[in-house]
Amino acid sequence: MIKINNNEEIFAAEVKMDGAKDVKMRMLIGPDDGSEKIFMRHFIIAPGGNTPYHQHNYEHVVKVESNRGIIVDENGNEHEIERGQSIFVKPNKKHQFKNPFVEDFEFICIIPNPDKL
Amino acid sequence: MIKINNNEEIFAAEVKMDGAKDVKMRMLIGPDDGSEKIFMRHFIIAPGGNTPYHQHNYEHVVKVESNRGIIVDENGNEHEIERGQSIFVKPNKKHQFKNPFVEDFEFICIIPNPDKL
Repeated sequence: MIKINNNEEIFAAEVKMDGAKDVKMRMLIGPDDGSEKIFMRHFIIAPGGNTPYHQHNYEHVVKVESNRGIIVDENGNEHEIERGQSIFVKPNKKHQFKNPFVEDFEFICIIPNPDKL
Repeated sequence: MIKINNNEEIFAAEVKMDGAKDVKMRMLIGPDDGSEKIFMRHFIIAPGGNTPYHQHNYEHVVKVESNRGIIVDENGNEHEIERGQSIFVKPNKKHQFKNPFVEDFEFICIIPNPDKL
């Protein structure tokens, strides 16, 4: 079976996590599509926004979709990332995405299903 | 640790699999980046090209990057897909990507590491 989604028709929900500011997320492919192992999410960070500076026991596979932003690594160092780049964040390493720029920072972030690690 | 790759600097290798025609693939995030569970690949199918009509015991999570193409499902039915769409293909279901159009058909295809299923 094949499931085809129109990305723009998927609701982009405000991320409510502690420490998140002006971040929206839409699940492009997830459990509702029958995907048990891999979730592909689309994040939109508005200018001035950021994800929490946090860590978890699974990795991130990221591809920047629009414009640019900052990723903060586990040592607190900032790296500018932009469209045309892909990023890997190891499990259990602190990280944060933030947008100090004037346009939306958009990326996809793929994770393994956290319930099936 | 964070790994940042410039997508365009990654070599796009011709896919040599039996049944593949005019398909190139670059590994955007894979084992060389320290990713053990998730591989993100970028496929480019030239006009007239196609992947094999095949199946395997892992899923595909796909996002169309440029233009449009066709995905063939396990019943042989064709579905046109285009930029702005995401697709999920279940494990063990026959499928094929092909490009009968005049521009390159590009998509990312994310899989779990087949050696760690």
